[in-house]
Amino acid sequence: MLHFECDYAEGAHPRILERLAATNLEQTDGYGVDPHCQRARELILAQCQAPEADVHFLVGGTQVNTAIIAAGLRPWQGVLSAASGHINVHETGAVEATGHKVLALPHRDGKVWAEAIDRAVSGHYADGNAEHMVQPWMVYLSNPTEYGTLYTKAELTAISQVCRRWRVPLYVDGARLGYALGAAGNDLFLSDYAALCDAFTVGGTKVGALFGEALVITSPELNRDFRYTIKQRGGMLAKGRLLGIQFEVLFEDGLYQALGEKADRQAMALRRAFEEKDCAMLLDSRTNQQFPILSRAQQAALAEKYQFSYWEPVAEGRGAVRFCTSWATADEALERLMADIRTKL
Amino acid sequence: MLHFECDYAEGAHPRILERLAATNLEQTDGYGVDPHCQRARELILAQCQAPEADVHFLVGGTQVNTAIIAAGLRPWQGVLSAASGHINVHETGAVEATGHKVLALPHRDGKVWAEAIDRAVSGHYADGNAEHMVQPWMVYLSNPTEYGTLYTKAELTAISQVCRRWRVPLYVDGARLGYALGAAGNDLFLSDYAALCDAFTVGGTKVGALFGEALVITSPELNRDFRYTIKQRGGMLAKGRLLGIQFEVLFEDGLYQALGEKADRQAMALRRAFEEKDCAMLLDSRTNQQFPILSRAQQAALAEKYQFSYWEPVAEGRGAVRFCTSWATADEALERLMADIRTKL
Amino acid sequence: MLHFECDYAEGAHPRILERLAATNLEQTDGYGVDPHCQRARELILAQCQAPEADVHFLVGGTQVNTAIIAAGLRPWQGVLSAASGHINVHETGAVEATGHKVLALPHRDGKVWAEAIDRAVSGHYADGNAEHMVQPWMVYLSNPTEYGTLYTKAELTAISQVCRRWRVPLYVDGARLGYALGAAGNDLFLSDYAALCDAFTVGGTKVGALFGEALVITSPELNRDFRYTIKQRGGMLAKGRLLGIQFEVLFEDGLYQALGEKADRQAMALRRAFEEKDCAMLLDSRTNQQFPILSRAQQAALAEKYQFSYWEPVAEGRGAVRFCTSWATADEALERLMADIRTKL
Amino acid sequence: MLHFECDYAEGAHPRILERLAATNLEQTDGYGVDPHCQRARELILAQCQAPEADVHFLVGGTQVNTAIIAAGLRPWQGVLSAASGHINVHETGAVEATGHKVLALPHRDGKVWAEAIDRAVSGHYADGNAEHMVQPWMVYLSNPTEYGTLYTKAELTAISQVCRRWRVPLYVDGARLGYALGAAGNDLFLSDYAALCDAFTVGGTKVGALFGEALVITSPELNRDFRYTIKQRGGMLAKGRLLGIQFEVLFEDGLYQALGEKADRQAMALRRAFEEKDCAMLLDSRTNQQFPILSRAQQAALAEKYQFSYWEPVAEGRGAVRFCTSWATADEALERLMADIRTKL
Repeated sequence: MLHFECDYAEGAHPRILERLAATNLEQTDGYGVDPHCQRARELILAQCQAPEADVHFLVGGTQVNTAIIAAGLRPWQGVLSAASGHINVHETGAVEATGHKVLALPHRDGKVWAEAIDRAVSGHYADGNAEHMVQPWMVYLSNPTEYGTLYTKAELTAISQVCRRWRVPLYVDGARLGYALGAAGNDLFLSDYAALCDAFTVGGTKVGALFGEALVITSPELNRDFRYTIKQRGGMLAKGRLLGIQFEVLFEDGLYQALGEKADRQAMALRRAFEEKDCAMLLDSRTNQQFPILSRAQQAALAEKYQFSYWEPVAEGRGAVRFCTSWATADEALERLMADIRTKL
Repeated sequence: MLHFECDYAEGAHPRILERLAATNLEQTDGYGVDPHCQRARELILAQCQAPEADVHFLVGGTQVNTAIIAAGLRPWQGVLSAASGHINVHETGAVEATGHKVLALPHRDGKVWAEAIDRAVSGHYADGNAEHMVQPWMVYLSNPTEYGTLYTKAELTAISQVCRRWRVPLYVDGARLGYALGAAGNDLFLSDYAALCDAFTVGGTKVGALFGEALVITSPELNRDFRYTIKQRGGMLAKGRLLGIQFEVLFEDGLYQALGEKADRQAMALRRAFEEKDCAMLLDSRTNQQFPILSRAQQAALAEKYQFSYWEPVAEGRGAVRFCTSWATADEALERLMADIRTKL
Repeated sequence: MLHFECDYAEGAHPRILERLAATNLEQTDGYGVDPHCQRARELILAQCQAPEADVHFLVGGTQVNTAIIAAGLRPWQGVLSAASGHINVHETGAVEATGHKVLALPHRDGKVWAEAIDRAVSGHYADGNAEHMVQPWMVYLSNPTEYGTLYTKAELTAISQVCRRWRVPLYVDGARLGYALGAAGNDLFLSDYAALCDAFTVGGTKVGALFGEALVITSPELNRDFRYTIKQRGGMLAKGRLLGIQFEVLFEDGLYQALGEKADRQAMALRRAFEEKDCAMLLDSRTNQQFPILSRAQQAALAEKYQFSYWEPVAEGRGAVRFCTSWATADEALERLMADIRTKL
Repeated sequence: MLHFECDYAEGAHPRILERLAATNLEQTDGYGVDPHCQRARELILAQCQAPEADVHFLVGGTQVNTAIIAAGLRPWQGVLSAASGHINVHETGAVEATGHKVLALPHRDGKVWAEAIDRAVSGHYADGNAEHMVQPWMVYLSNPTEYGTLYTKAELTAISQVCRRWRVPLYVDGARLGYALGAAGNDLFLSDYAALCDAFTVGGTKVGALFGEALVITSPELNRDFRYTIKQRGGMLAKGRLLGIQFEVLFEDGLYQALGEKADRQAMALRRAFEEKDCAMLLDSRTNQQFPILSRAQQAALAEKYQFSYWEPVAEGRGAVRFCTSWATADEALERLMADIRTKL
């Protein structure tokens, strides 16, 4: 079986393993204050063009989302998110476990938009009994979204402006950020995120690392005492340098960008293979997740040799499925899959 | 500088890195349900002689402590712990952040004892207004303790009996369990922990792994739906097999035990070197942490080439310091340190 | 101005004030273990025909909702509620502040239904990654709903059966229960709630008391150690007998039922007055809240002398408003309002 | 039996009940924005000489303590309190249930002192791993303390200065504040609390009201959005004017002060009666709680006709007990008790 059901089925990019071996017996301080974390921080901030921002390295996505949201909200405040957002669906209520409501926004293919955010916040304050309701505060979105879709620079700028008008922080979950950066037509770069957001992550787990998320915080207020929060929420790694080393490798000569581009290119080739067989896409994704709509017979035909995810039913016995490419997808595996699409669908 | 200030200054045992490299391109399911986790689970349970127990692999200590405590308590209950316990002092209130009070017990060199637990629980119920106070429920202890001291089998058995009489779960934090297992005179083995405790951890981070704690749960009630808790508390690793692989290496042929024995032997040699120079020990540790009492001049003499931790002041201008050996301590480094002790103190 | 905007604009039924004065210098134990609470408990349980159930008296609705939900859920579980439910909208995230997600269900005029609950729970377990999502556990509904609508016995029975099949507790918020009991056509009595629910409240604040909610718990598991929860969530009144005294007055000779009937009768008279002027109702409420749809001019005409709530916009410049009657609504006030409806609309 | 075991055994001062009856059919807005709350706020602020402060009325002590502490702390911060403090012992972990650790301070007869606070805070920041520990933030103390002892103006001023140097808020729980204000030798008045604290309560429940605590907040930062917190923590009363009316009566012509003075005078008379029989006091209380040390025979002799609390054992078979007077203690009851002390001990 060849795996296309997710982008974390393998270990790490070989250069990361090599570097871990090469540095293995170095002795460093723990908890993220070692020279490797420091260098990785500088490499990322250089790309952000935000020398006064800070970067923290956390073990995983749930921890980083929980940490920044809990640190950014007062007890009576909630975080606005697409109803389909990862924090609202797939983190077992980790945000609520910190005491905060996720305030669900409508979405289009996983994306929220500036007007809906503005309406949610202004509507709250317009109510005569505002204090009986959760105060909308932080805005959470992910790029790419859960559906692989992308925000444009214009869209994120509009959202950022609404957030700043209401003084609510904007946080972008970049668990798959590499696949946004590598997409054809993408016009949002690290420097844009740094300019438009109060905090955002550069995801490692799904883009070549063993594990790890880099959290860039540009807001001094959010960053105050943030290491307490990392520790409290279980995001601080004793051997913190493991995170620094991995992000050094990813950022010292463009590997992170290159891995995203490669996987996105493969995903677009896969999409074309489906489209050539008249399989429609559930939505227009330019990144490493593709959602072809297949009949049951087509699904069965591919399921013999390939693992992929069932996503959701579509009318007339057809269903959308998800195929992921990743930093690790071998060209040979992709070729075999595309050949089978051409011959078996 | 040679580092003796903690047991997590290096990476991982070389065999772990080799195995990670060898398995790197395997494709597995995520989140801990892969064959490596399954095999590691079986290896650990075989040593526990507890085939019906379960083992979960979590990223780090704060997550595992938080997960098992939050899962084991109802909202009005608290966890009993030595005042010096890790959860009471060094996890930034992570337990309280889940809504529960840590009920501090007196301790002797980091250890609690059965009578004090019994007194705390019986005293609670004897009060006419018990419901105005936090109900003592789970008991937390670590072995070795924060001070490197060890429980005997008789002591842990007595504690276990008190817990079972009151029906409160007993949880042992084994972040440094390897150094307990490897200590001269230790009479508590994995099968004893499995028989006496409702849950306990086998710590990887400080005993040769890059990171990771194996949580053994023998109580079916504590284990119910436990994977939800792991996810919610940020302890679930996307590439879960990284944890399974590491514990496979540690447990397939006795490496875990061997690493503990080696470090403990080094620590006892170091202790003798101090004692030969008439440096008293703060307390009687048989494990990898040693606490000699040194004058300021002695501390300064050693600080030129060695990094160690200042622990606490002792009368007459003397202070206790902490030296740690670990799975990674090189014999050459230890020899140099002991030579300097002999010549410079 | 005459107030029709809510059912808590006045103090308490005069007989309650008289009884408070008559008992004022009695000396009793605090915290709800006094003879008045005991007698009120017995009076309520007699109507429930549930001698083994328990009754607790709490100060207010947010406390009682929070207490029973926090006590009934494990940390990874959430409570199912109509999206319009009070706990989901109007308690400032008090449930989330206890760590739990409110899982919003679709609703019809404020009511949920058995199939939707069944679908939510079965859908959760059908998902391969159930543990990444909040486990649906307790079901919350209120009767009457936020819209004044009522469940029938058949509907509540069907919901109860679904809950028992999945073993999830059913909790009914009866903040306005008196107005359900007093409604024409109501077929749900206290004995039905006791038979069908695991817990439900008999609301005092909105039905003649100064304040206070009686919580009936029929599930021994939910009731275990419940007084700890009451105290922790701020629901325990030092002078607990104040609650017992009020519920004694309400339940010793049918006052609670009579107050509900009176207000409902007034509300139906008011509804007919609107309907005679061809004002449609937003929905079919048989209880003390009525939602006529009025033009802006009609709203303005009534707003000169009467206070009422704007509810929501309806097409064509019309809006639904809310008029409440209550235990305290004077017949003279109602007559004046109806006369103005007849002449000014 | 005559009750001396607590100060909340009766209902309310008769003038409060009369006023509730007189205002019963007034129609007002709910939730504390009515004219009675407004007038009570003004009466209290006039005594505080703090026109820019705010006053909120909450139902009870646990709610008010929880609300102000949760609003004043960030997630990684804890509240400093005497180990004997009410929030640390007798609120069933309500503070921890909001996610925060209570950091226990040593105490003398229930009182904390400036140097100990300074040491706790400075010690935290001096530790190299501060972020692994809970950050000490708010300071909680009560006056009178749990033992009836009082702070002097000099002591509270010193504490306030330490708090301001570290920028941590100072909160005084005045559940029994009337008995502090009424004590012989007291030199702390409402204007002093307003000048020295960031928030403090004026307790009603134990000083003549049916229930209710007035929370004075002088810090604009703590007061921001505070009504959201009141609602979320269950402290907002639907019929909020009930609180306003009670505090109007207590503060419009000095009743609050007078009730405290009366009870304190009675308590000092009772103390002298014990001392004349050579019964030592556990500590020097000038307020309504007195702690004589009695032999078992003496305790038994008084227990025939009087209810009082056993407090703690003292050497030689003797124990301290607690007798409380209150706003409601009748002179005749006190005379009988003192006569029995003279004749039976």
